[in-house]
Amino acid sequence: MVDSWATSPSGQALGIDLHIEPTGSGLRKGLTDALREAVRGGRLAPGTRLPASRTLAVDLGIARNTVADAYADLVAEGWLTARQGSGTRVAERPVEAPRPTPTPGRRTSGGLHYDLHPGRPDLASFPRSEWLKAARRALTSAPNEALGYGDPRGRPELRTSLAGYLARARGVHTDPDRIVICAGFHHGLMLLGDVLRRRGVQNVAVESYGLDVHWDVLTRTGLRTRPLPFDDLGTDPGALDDWGTGTKGSAGQPGGAAGVGAALLAPAHQFPMGVPLHPDRRAAAVDWARRTGGLILEDDYDGEFRYDRQPVGALQGLDPDRVVYLGTASKSLAPGLRLGWMVLPASLTQEVVESKGSIDWSCGVLDQLTLAEFLNSGAYDRHLRGARLRYRRRRDQLVAALAEHAPAVHATGIAAGLHAVLQLPPGTEQSVVRAAAWQGLGVAGLSSFRHEDTAASDARADALVVGYGTPPDHAWSGALDALCRVLP
Amino acid sequence: MVDSWATSPSGQALGIDLHIEPTGSGLRKGLTDALREAVRGGRLAPGTRLPASRTLAVDLGIARNTVADAYADLVAEGWLTARQGSGTRVAERPVEAPRPTPTPGRRTSGGLHYDLHPGRPDLASFPRSEWLKAARRALTSAPNEALGYGDPRGRPELRTSLAGYLARARGVHTDPDRIVICAGFHHGLMLLGDVLRRRGVQNVAVESYGLDVHWDVLTRTGLRTRPLPFDDLGTDPGALDDWGTGTKGSAGQPGGAAGVGAALLAPAHQFPMGVPLHPDRRAAAVDWARRTGGLILEDDYDGEFRYDRQPVGALQGLDPDRVVYLGTASKSLAPGLRLGWMVLPASLTQEVVESKGSIDWSCGVLDQLTLAEFLNSGAYDRHLRGARLRYRRRRDQLVAALAEHAPAVHATGIAAGLHAVLQLPPGTEQSVVRAAAWQGLGVAGLSSFRHEDTAASDARADALVVGYGTPPDHAWSGALDALCRVLP
Repeated sequence: MVDSWATSPSGQALGIDLHIEPTGSGLRKGLTDALREAVRGGRLAPGTRLPASRTLAVDLGIARNTVADAYADLVAEGWLTARQGSGTRVAERPVEAPRPTPTPGRRTSGGLHYDLHPGRPDLASFPRSEWLKAARRALTSAPNEALGYGDPRGRPELRTSLAGYLARARGVHTDPDRIVICAGFHHGLMLLGDVLRRRGVQNVAVESYGLDVHWDVLTRTGLRTRPLPFDDLGTDPGALDDWGTGTKGSAGQPGGAAGVGAALLAPAHQFPMGVPLHPDRRAAAVDWARRTGGLILEDDYDGEFRYDRQPVGALQGLDPDRVVYLGTASKSLAPGLRLGWMVLPASLTQEVVESKGSIDWSCGVLDQLTLAEFLNSGAYDRHLRGARLRYRRRRDQLVAALAEHAPAVHATGIAAGLHAVLQLPPGTEQSVVRAAAWQGLGVAGLSSFRHEDTAASDARADALVVGYGTPPDHAWSGALDALCRVLP
Repeated sequence: MVDSWATSPSGQALGIDLHIEPTGSGLRKGLTDALREAVRGGRLAPGTRLPASRTLAVDLGIARNTVADAYADLVAEGWLTARQGSGTRVAERPVEAPRPTPTPGRRTSGGLHYDLHPGRPDLASFPRSEWLKAARRALTSAPNEALGYGDPRGRPELRTSLAGYLARARGVHTDPDRIVICAGFHHGLMLLGDVLRRRGVQNVAVESYGLDVHWDVLTRTGLRTRPLPFDDLGTDPGALDDWGTGTKGSAGQPGGAAGVGAALLAPAHQFPMGVPLHPDRRAAAVDWARRTGGLILEDDYDGEFRYDRQPVGALQGLDPDRVVYLGTASKSLAPGLRLGWMVLPASLTQEVVESKGSIDWSCGVLDQLTLAEFLNSGAYDRHLRGARLRYRRRRDQLVAALAEHAPAVHATGIAAGLHAVLQLPPGTEQSVVRAAAWQGLGVAGLSSFRHEDTAASDARADALVVGYGTPPDHAWSGALDALCRVLP
C-alpha cells in the first residue's frame, strides 16, 4: 500500500519531496531499507540529489542524526554518494541512454559526418549571449500577469513588436490584434486547416514541390491537397481558376467538391525550387482569391534571407484581407524556440483565436517576451545582418566550388535563403544521393520534395537540394569538399 | 507594385530589414516620401527603431548624409524622433491598446479588485531570479543540436531529470523514454484523446466535478465523456464495471458502444472537491483497468502541495502499465511556461510520440533545458518548499477567518493544493457569487464545475470554490476580508 508509512503515527511521511515506502520497524532501519529499495528498484535515479539530512529530519520530526546515519549506511553500501558541496546523491550506475526517436518527416543527422539537408539554420550561430541578455531584461520587467494562462493570441508585447518589424522588413500590413503567435509554422498551418475545414473547404492547392510534413498537416485536418503546375516561371496559379469553376457561381462556398478554398504558397522563395513567384502570378493569385473568396496561405519561411539586394515584399501586402501571412523564428534564430506567427485577415481572426484558445496552447511566455525584447532592442536586426553575411558567403563558396570542381552542375534559384538546388545530369539523382550517404554526407534529392500528384510534365530534372545553412562553420568547408567529391 | 523600388537601377533596395516602396525622383526625396508614407499608413508602427543612417546608407550604396538628411526632415515634420542612445524611431501617437480576448473556459481577472478564482498559483512568487540563473547555466552548456527540431518527446535532459524527480517526490515508476513533454495538461490530454479515438475508444469516464475545458478537449477529439458518481467518499469508480459490461467479454475492444475505454481521475486531490480518492477506490480503479484493458489518466495537477504530512503517492505507481501520469509546471511554477509531462505505459508510448511528432510540436527547448537545470540544482525543491509554506499559511488564515467571521461556513477537503471548498447554506450559492462580483471579488460557485450529465443525487450542496493561491501576497488579506463580508 502506497500510504503505509504515511499513516504510521510517528514520522508520518518523508516530506512530499521524497515519496518512498519504508518497511520494517525502527526509524533508522525503516528509512534505510526504504531508501535502498527505492534506489535498487530504479525509482530514485542515479545522480538524484536527496534532501539535506536536516531538512528531512525536520519534515519527519525525528533527530537529524537518524537521517544522517541512514544516509551514511547507504553511502557505505555504495547506494549513495556524499560529496562536500554537492550533497548526498544516488550513486551512478551505467544506465542506458535514452534512444532518440526519429521524428516522422524530419531527417536527423544521426550517423552522418556532414549534414547538408535543407531546412535548418546554422545552430552554432544562435546568439546565446544576446538572447540571455534579452531574457533577463524581459523577465525582469514583465508584469506578473504575463506568467498566467494569458491570451491565446500570445503576448501583446511580442505581437506589437512583430507588427512593427513585419511592416518594416517584409511590407506586411497588420496590427497586433490580428497577429497570433503559434508554436512554429506547422502549428499555424494546423490551426488554419482546422478553421478551413469547419468552413466547409475540402481542397487546398499546394505547390508541386514542398515538404510532405506540411501536406500531411493539412491532410490530418481533413483537407485534400492538390498540387499546382510548376513550369519554367515557377508555380502557375492559373489552375486555381480552372479548378474553381464548380464553385465560382456560389461565392459563399469556396472550395466545394470541385474547387479549392485556399492555396499554400511560398511566394518570396519557393521551397525547395528557390525561385520567387513571378510578379504576374502574384497578381493572378490574389485576383483569384478576391474573385472566389479564397484564401492564400503565404509561407514566408526565409524571407529575411535575400542576398542580391532585391527583396520581394510579402504577398500579404497586396491584399491583407485575402492573404494569411505565416512567419517563423525557426530559420532566423532556431527551430528549438518553436515560435512562429500568423498575420490574419480580420474576417478570420476570431475563428482562429477560438480554435487555438479552446485547446489553450499559448507558447511559453518567456521566449515570447524575450523575442519582443530582442526585436525592440535591435538585436534581431543585428543578428540577421550577421547571419545574412555568413550564409551569403557560403552560397558564394558553393557556387565557386561547383564552377571549379563540378562544372557540369550548376546552382539554380535566386541568391537567397539557406539552400540551393543543384541541377544534375538526367538519371543521376538517386545514385548521387546514395554515393553521398555512403561517404557520410547527408543531402536530399529533389524527388523527395515532389507532391505525389504532380503531373509527369511538371517533374523537373534530377537535382540535389543542398542546405548550406545546416553545418556549423568549422564543418562547412569539409562538407563542401565532400559534396564536390560525389558530384558527377 | 511592391517591387518598384527594388528594380530601380540605383539604390536597389532599402536593405531587407526596411521594406518600403519609395516613389518620385531624387534619392533624398524618394526616401523621405517613402518613409513618411510608411509611417502615415501605419506600416511603421510608433516606437519602431529605424536602422542607423550609416547602416542603411551602406545597404543602399548612397552617402550616409542622404539618409541622415531624410531622417532629419522627418524628425522636423514630427514623424520620427531622434534621441542620443536610442536611435531614430517612429514618433509615438496615441494608438489603441490591443483588446484582450477572453480565453474560452478561462476566467480572467479583468475588472476585479480581488481574484479568488481557483486554478492559478501566486504568479508574484515565480522565482524569476533563480529561473534566470538556471536559464543561463542551461543555455550556456547546451549542445548546438538542442536548438534544432529535436525529439517529439522533448529534450532528454528534462526527461531524465523528471524521471528522477517524479520517482522521488511522487512515487512514479518510469524511465526517460516513456516521458513525453507537452505544452501543459490540455495538450497532453488532447494527444491522449486522439490516440484513444484512433484505438476505437468512444467513451471516457470523468469525474462529476472538474473543468469543462478538460471535457471539451476530449469531446473535440471525438470522445464522449461520462461522469462517474460522486458521494461522501468521493468519486466512485464502481460504475466503470457496470458501464463496461458490454465490452467485458471482448478484451480487445475496451470502450465500445456500452463501456468506457479510459477514466480521467485526479486521485491525489479531486478538483475542485478537494478530497483524495479513497484507498479502496484507488485499488478498484486499477483493478478495472487491468481486467478490461482500460486506461486511467491520472491528473496530478497539484500533487506537490500537501500540507498535513500525509502525501499520497501517484496512482501510477500501482500499475505503470495501465495508468498514464500527467503532471504540469502550471501550478508549481507558472502556467505561462506551458510545460507539462506525461508518463506513458510502454504500450502507448510509440503511438503518442507519433501523434505528437507528426505535427511537430515540441515545446520551446530553452524552457525545457532550464527546468531540467532547475530540478537538478535543487532550486525546484527549494521553490516548492517555500510555496508550500506560503499556501499553507494562507489556507490556515482562511480557515481561521471563517471560524471568526462566518461560523456557518466551513472549508471541506484535505489541507492541500491551492483552493478550498466552502460549504454554503442551501440555495445561497448564486446570490453569494453575485454579491461578490458586485463588490469586485471574483470567486467561483461549485455549480460551474459540475458535469452536465451529473445525476441529481450526486449534486453536492451549494458551495464556493476559493482559489487562495491566486492573489499576490499584498492583496491576500484584503481578498480574505472581502470574502468574509459576502459570506452569509
